[in-house]
Amino acid sequence: MVAELTALRDQIDEVDKALLGLLACRLALVAEVGEVKSRYGLPIYAPDREAAMLRSRREEAEALNVPADLIEDVLRRVMRESYASENDNGFKTLCSQLRPVVIVGGRGQMGRMFEKMLRLSCYEVRLLEKDDWPQADSLLADAGMVIVSVPIHVTEQVITQLPRLLEDCIANRLKNDYNQCPDMWQKIQLIVIKIMSLGYILVDLASLKNGPLQAMLAAHSGPVVGLHPMFGPDSGSLATQVVVYCDARQPEAYQWLLEQIQVWGARLHRISAVEHDQNMMFIQALRHFATFAYGLHLAEENVQLEQLLALSSPIYRFELVMVGLLFAQDPQLYADIIMSSENNLALIKRYYARFGEAIALLEGKDKAAFIASFKKVEHWFGDYAKRFQVESRALLKQANDSRI
Amino acid sequence: MVAELTALRDQIDEVDKALLGLLACRLALVAEVGEVKSRYGLPIYAPDREAAMLRSRREEAEALNVPADLIEDVLRRVMRESYASENDNGFKTLCSQLRPVVIVGGRGQMGRMFEKMLRLSCYEVRLLEKDDWPQADSLLADAGMVIVSVPIHVTEQVITQLPRLLEDCIANRLKNDYNQCPDMWQKIQLIVIKIMSLGYILVDLASLKNGPLQAMLAAHSGPVVGLHPMFGPDSGSLATQVVVYCDARQPEAYQWLLEQIQVWGARLHRISAVEHDQNMMFIQALRHFATFAYGLHLAEENVQLEQLLALSSPIYRFELVMVGLLFAQDPQLYADIIMSSENNLALIKRYYARFGEAIALLEGKDKAAFIASFKKVEHWFGDYAKRFQVESRALLKQANDSRI
Repeated sequence: MVAELTALRDQIDEVDKALLGLLACRLALVAEVGEVKSRYGLPIYAPDREAAMLRSRREEAEALNVPADLIEDVLRRVMRESYASENDNGFKTLCSQLRPVVIVGGRGQMGRMFEKMLRLSCYEVRLLEKDDWPQADSLLADAGMVIVSVPIHVTEQVITQLPRLLEDCIANRLKNDYNQCPDMWQKIQLIVIKIMSLGYILVDLASLKNGPLQAMLAAHSGPVVGLHPMFGPDSGSLATQVVVYCDARQPEAYQWLLEQIQVWGARLHRISAVEHDQNMMFIQALRHFATFAYGLHLAEENVQLEQLLALSSPIYRFELVMVGLLFAQDPQLYADIIMSSENNLALIKRYYARFGEAIALLEGKDKAAFIASFKKVEHWFGDYAKRFQVESRALLKQANDSRI
Repeated sequence: MVAELTALRDQIDEVDKALLGLLACRLALVAEVGEVKSRYGLPIYAPDREAAMLRSRREEAEALNVPADLIEDVLRRVMRESYASENDNGFKTLCSQLRPVVIVGGRGQMGRMFEKMLRLSCYEVRLLEKDDWPQADSLLADAGMVIVSVPIHVTEQVITQLPRLLEDCIANRLKNDYNQCPDMWQKIQLIVIKIMSLGYILVDLASLKNGPLQAMLAAHSGPVVGLHPMFGPDSGSLATQVVVYCDARQPEAYQWLLEQIQVWGARLHRISAVEHDQNMMFIQALRHFATFAYGLHLAEENVQLEQLLALSSPIYRFELVMVGLLFAQDPQLYADIIMSSENNLALIKRYYARFGEAIALLEGKDKAAFIASFKKVEHWFGDYAKRFQVESRALLKQANDSRI
């Protein structure tokens, strides 16, 4: 028996080593593709090519009696690695005449992500942190784009101060240079350059959009756009991630930026600032707060986490992981997000009231009413409930594969 | 440019086809391993072999400049497929002298899963559904094991009725046969056989353990064990899944069953019924109810689900998927689980009260208190918060890969 098993396992190991060799070879080929794409400014995420390729491999798999989902899952995993390594070649510069980019708050995680992507695309990037305010003048004076990436509770304040500071310092310089300049033609050139330098693109990356956008429009007369990257900064790459944008002023001036973000591999989603913020109340404030309250409850009930995990189904384990994840983050960030608006509090209180109503169903042992409410929500989810089943089945299996 | 890209992509396609060939070859080898394991009754899940093999491949990957996580993720995915196909060979029968197994509620999903696994292991299996009660007598009379797999709200009731029914019908038969039998020696044999047939193993699969276990011990004088499979019945295989068990009476009589479950690939976790149920209040009742209330809130706020999904980060998308998933299930099941005990209601009400206290922090705009509470929970999660970060990073990337 042992000899039989050992012989078979040795063969499996040989197959796995060959597989490893193929992966190495594939990554090398993908790096070459990345190099070509970078040279011609093509987006690294090519959904059509991806879909066509997966379709072919699935068909071939079926002919070989290999489950089609297996080859698709394996190739998707390999492609994800490829996107990350396609970064290494840098990206085509879509706006080569752009003056330097200043990232205010550029040492934060999302700021550093944009710094990296911009530098990989050969833009000049300068960082402006709290401590750099004395040098803000020289850092900002000739900026072609200013990206505000500071905590949400100071975003509007920074936006209001920044353009004023910039305009003041440009006006002062202009006055000095103008007075010192003997030649009338050069004086006119100076004025043109300085006026141009006020035409920088103002961008913010905050997780709320209406307030910052209004503040940017009020404080700056040039092009303005709001971005919200919908992913954690530890993703390492923008490939296949969603970046939401809100148009604000002179979209033709920042069109290249939206295209550049697509070259980095992200998917763009356009929305109005008001609609964006309404959705964020649910996605951020309510969900974070509910998770916070749930974590608090677990801690105060003093349940044994180890035992809870040992007894978890893959779904519940994943939900626990999501709860724990919140508490690995910076509490200040969550306090800021949740307390950023009175609307958040109102929404949370409406949830609390409905929770209370649902408890009344339990207290009345009213199974029929519970089931009726349940069906109402089922109806609201519509076709998505079934789609989610398909989506989660694969994911929960993966969750179980990698169970620590 | 097009020619350059096409040439590279053709090469990638060739690599992918070779990869597909290797997968086909690997699955064939694994089927042979399954055949050997089945012949010798070895568990299909071999964690030590798995860990050693992954360690070697990771080292080799690093030598080839292939990310070690890539080969591990790919191999884990392939192994999952392998476990499913190892089923096809059937499993060794660890208790070949076992009389027929009767699954009460065997047409439910979990019942069918056990039916499949038992048949694959060459046990005789009979199903007993509501409609089969008139034939219960003949179905049960010579059972070697009775597995109760009925909805939680009727589990105890079924357990109480079942052994009584069985004892009555055996007593009646015994009386008839005894009276009709002319030979004293045969009469004694009859009595022995009938007494033996009362020694069947009584098992339940309910999601609560204390009540059913007490009911089983009270109703049946033979061996008793409680099982709780910690996974959805659509998993297709028990490989790597967790099955919780609570010892109750004569463990030596059902030891083979626990080993058989391991042969099917599951991981066993032993716990007392009381501790099990305490944890289930959190894992099932509280979590399901909180999810129910959250879904109800979304539906009543009438937010646009499509837009919510478009704006979701991978984490939030996954949380929404988990919420939607609940509402794709049978509401009766959740009503039964949540309303199965007064303790559940009490726990849910304590959660509600803490939620209210947390809202008070928001109303008082008390960021410092919010942060202090947050840190308390962070402390409670301890090392797990960091471990969860590692675990979820990979998972969320996979979630994004397969985004529908």
